[in-house]
Amino acid sequence: MKFNVEVRIKLKKGMLNPEAATIQRALALLGYEVENTNTIDIITFTMEEDNKKKVEEEVEDMCQRLLCNPVIHDYQINIKPED
Amino acid sequence: MKFNVEVRIKLKKGMLNPEAATIQRALALLGYEVENTNTIDIITFTMEEDNKKKVEEEVEDMCQRLLCNPVIHDYQINIKPED
Repeated sequence: MKFNVEVRIKLKKGMLNPEAATIQRALALLGYEVENTNTIDIITFTMEEDNKKKVEEEVEDMCQRLLCNPVIHDYQINIKPED
Repeated sequence: MKFNVEVRIKLKKGMLNPEAATIQRALALLGYEVENTNTIDIITFTMEEDNKKKVEEEVEDMCQRLLCNPVIHDYQINIKPED
């Protein structure tokens, strides 16, 4: 069975985010007043597996080993069976 | 009135995505078989404005002028009034 996986990665609260700070400053220079700017990275992929539980375990593993840095990142995993 | 804005930016179909290709290769090296890997960038911020229509126009403007490169990116804008 095929599953669509989406991993949403963002910096933990309190971590400095220079990318977001730069965006906010650049927007201000263009005259747009925005606040609380933040950035989130999403990685999506499809995966062949027997059931959703196995996908969950495997993706959790991927996050810990490669996709995220658990020291600085919070991540969220969304799994949907492909139609 | 305060609005929460989320801009979702991804490469247009057919554009090469070296970041996604690298992730997929690295996952394969660790023994995870995944396909159709893709990456999406999200920028979130809050904004003070009279009504939703004005926010839409302004954010559309920001995307064209700074946040996205319309030649290579597709973008999606989500706006929600802050509770």
